[in-house]
Amino acid sequence: MARAKSAGTLLYAQSGGVTAVINATASGVISEARARGVKVLAARNGILGALREELVDTSKESAAAIAGLAQTPGGAFGSCRYKLKSLEADRAKYERLLQVLQAHDVRYFLYNGGNDSADTAWKVSQLAREFGYPLTCIGVPKTIDNDLAVTDTCPGFGSAAKYTAVSVREAALDVAAMAETSTKVFVYEAMGRHAGWLAAAAGLAGQSPDDAPQVILFPERAYDEAAFLAQVDKVVKKIGWCVVVASEGIRDKDGRFVADAGGGKDAFGHTQLGGVSSYLAGKVKDKLGYKVHWTLPDYLQRSARHIASKTDWEQAQAVGKAAVQYALKGMNAVMPVIVRTSSAPYRWKIEPAPLHKVANHEKTMPAGFIRKDGFGITARAREYLEPLIRGEAPLAYGRDGLPKYVTLKNVAVKKKLPAWEG
Amino acid sequence: MARAKSAGTLLYAQSGGVTAVINATASGVISEARARGVKVLAARNGILGALREELVDTSKESAAAIAGLAQTPGGAFGSCRYKLKSLEADRAKYERLLQVLQAHDVRYFLYNGGNDSADTAWKVSQLAREFGYPLTCIGVPKTIDNDLAVTDTCPGFGSAAKYTAVSVREAALDVAAMAETSTKVFVYEAMGRHAGWLAAAAGLAGQSPDDAPQVILFPERAYDEAAFLAQVDKVVKKIGWCVVVASEGIRDKDGRFVADAGGGKDAFGHTQLGGVSSYLAGKVKDKLGYKVHWTLPDYLQRSARHIASKTDWEQAQAVGKAAVQYALKGMNAVMPVIVRTSSAPYRWKIEPAPLHKVANHEKTMPAGFIRKDGFGITARAREYLEPLIRGEAPLAYGRDGLPKYVTLKNVAVKKKLPAWEG
Repeated sequence: MARAKSAGTLLYAQSGGVTAVINATASGVISEARARGVKVLAARNGILGALREELVDTSKESAAAIAGLAQTPGGAFGSCRYKLKSLEADRAKYERLLQVLQAHDVRYFLYNGGNDSADTAWKVSQLAREFGYPLTCIGVPKTIDNDLAVTDTCPGFGSAAKYTAVSVREAALDVAAMAETSTKVFVYEAMGRHAGWLAAAAGLAGQSPDDAPQVILFPERAYDEAAFLAQVDKVVKKIGWCVVVASEGIRDKDGRFVADAGGGKDAFGHTQLGGVSSYLAGKVKDKLGYKVHWTLPDYLQRSARHIASKTDWEQAQAVGKAAVQYALKGMNAVMPVIVRTSSAPYRWKIEPAPLHKVANHEKTMPAGFIRKDGFGITARAREYLEPLIRGEAPLAYGRDGLPKYVTLKNVAVKKKLPAWEG
Repeated sequence: MARAKSAGTLLYAQSGGVTAVINATASGVISEARARGVKVLAARNGILGALREELVDTSKESAAAIAGLAQTPGGAFGSCRYKLKSLEADRAKYERLLQVLQAHDVRYFLYNGGNDSADTAWKVSQLAREFGYPLTCIGVPKTIDNDLAVTDTCPGFGSAAKYTAVSVREAALDVAAMAETSTKVFVYEAMGRHAGWLAAAAGLAGQSPDDAPQVILFPERAYDEAAFLAQVDKVVKKIGWCVVVASEGIRDKDGRFVADAGGGKDAFGHTQLGGVSSYLAGKVKDKLGYKVHWTLPDYLQRSARHIASKTDWEQAQAVGKAAVQYALKGMNAVMPVIVRTSSAPYRWKIEPAPLHKVANHEKTMPAGFIRKDGFGITARAREYLEPLIRGEAPLAYGRDGLPKYVTLKNVAVKKKLPAWEG
């Protein structure tokens, strides 16, 4: 394995909720860096590992392991939910971070995450400049929420979107077959606290308004119980059954999360973990009297590497490789983003975007993506979404019938600094 | 398409909860019958369609559609939950059934379902004999519950088992990556009201007791809250996180379903749809204080054709073909069952079993399949289960990134009898 010291050392860290393909990005980073003689360290549990000086030496991993990493979901080095505040408020942490980078001769810092991570990478680049430490900081996009600005889409989203569309189509076939004597309404809860991107992707499961999902509830539209129930009832009366997809982030007209209405404490003070789909299912049962089933896929939707989108998987690797290339060119404080050059046929390329443009914005779903009645997606949404779930990412299975997911050795790098007092 | 009248007409019906591969059985039935010049009618919505004389003519479907049927989940003709009682109690219905069969010159009746369907098929065969009507009745096995007697396994189970093992392994990679700062305990709810077959299949996701799922709760063992929480706590303290798989059918020592404790009505009289995983997650949160997530895959686990087991898929087709062969040989009141001739290497064959032996029994999980501490599976269970999830059933995807599932034309057969007054 190449370990050319001349090219400097690169530190890679994962941040926030993991996806089916964030490790494909890691694999892209490591393989590209190896090809260029750059040593790659990875932080355990994201930025926390960088602060704690808990680093692993990826050169100890075989080429086969790094190839296998590209087909393994989760976060191979650990990720974290840990947000650094402003340079003023968290200055000691940023300085500690720089000390760790310096101690290990890190010249390239790649932070793989969403908005917050882009912001952190940008701040680290500012501080390094202030200290005169030669460091190139790159943000690498990732989030199933698809809410990053500038980039056309976010690695991780397409695979979760494919899981959603496929699962909803399959469940709909089940419900359609059973509706005569059993379940007539099925409710599927999609992730998306602020934007309805994954709920919208469920719309790809059908072509006409009569196809499932016949009702989609978006956080972009206020939840109206009467209108929702009327729509479900109309669909059941027409077709015999109805599949509902609800975004976890739907809110009523007063801005209250519907999910919170379904949970809370029961009469004995025990926690009731609600969620949107169970709440809506309860309403359908109580008010319409139909037999109802519901699902909460939760983490399954973001870790389902077995049904990952090939488009998404290729883009995840591409942003990883581009990040290394940009770093070696000294393109500081940028993020490789996905640019759509054509929808039909679908074509894309990777380009650098300034980190601060990504960091301080959030991409919401265009109003024109939601049907006028609020319960479905438009042709424009379909045109945007469909290429993102296209293709099936290659995946090797073992003789045991399970996907061949790799576990890295994650050999620790010897610490050089005193323990972090954070 | 062959329509040889000489060989008689066959009626095929689906019953009970559908699976990822029951249509593969239907495809096996129809293709085998076509090859032998037998016309196949199918009942809409199972036995209800037979009673209502709502039949479809499968000869109107193209060869491509019947091939596509083998890779389509759900129930292509509709299924139903409708149990015929004893011959005495429901005699009028059984007689109506015979009238419909006679009116359409049906000489072979294939009923594809679980225990109840085997029982119904057996009773129909008895009544036909009594009336002197030449009818050959065949039960065709199907159930994700894996609780049919005589057969080594039930078509549908292996695919749901594969979905379960793969999903649990993927979710575990997610939780492991996030545990340092986020979710430490994840609860997965598996179907299985009476037996823990699917929960046991989750055990295939790991090899050692430290691998996920570290805790499995079986309906075969009484749920003990203190022991459960102690086990979860022990695992989190040792590994940092814990994945729990709970069978929906777990009960406390007094025989009460845990799922019922989680649901009921809230203070306002609204239905709270609970379930086992949300209930257990609430306990973990309240009593141990760990951040917890949970999933209820519900129908997704039995309709996930995209991750169907090749072994299961092949067996589903094989029982369909064998059913036609047995029917044409006049082997009345039998069911083609799967016989395991060897576990390593895994070998199986199809053999006929008397319907009444299947109808009046339920296969429970052997006590030797559950680990002594009650929280995992044994090597014996693994040896039994592992071959069943082996291989990936072929599946064609469209340019739109979705599996190519077929919709049949389901052309109605002209009715010949007065409407059913049932």
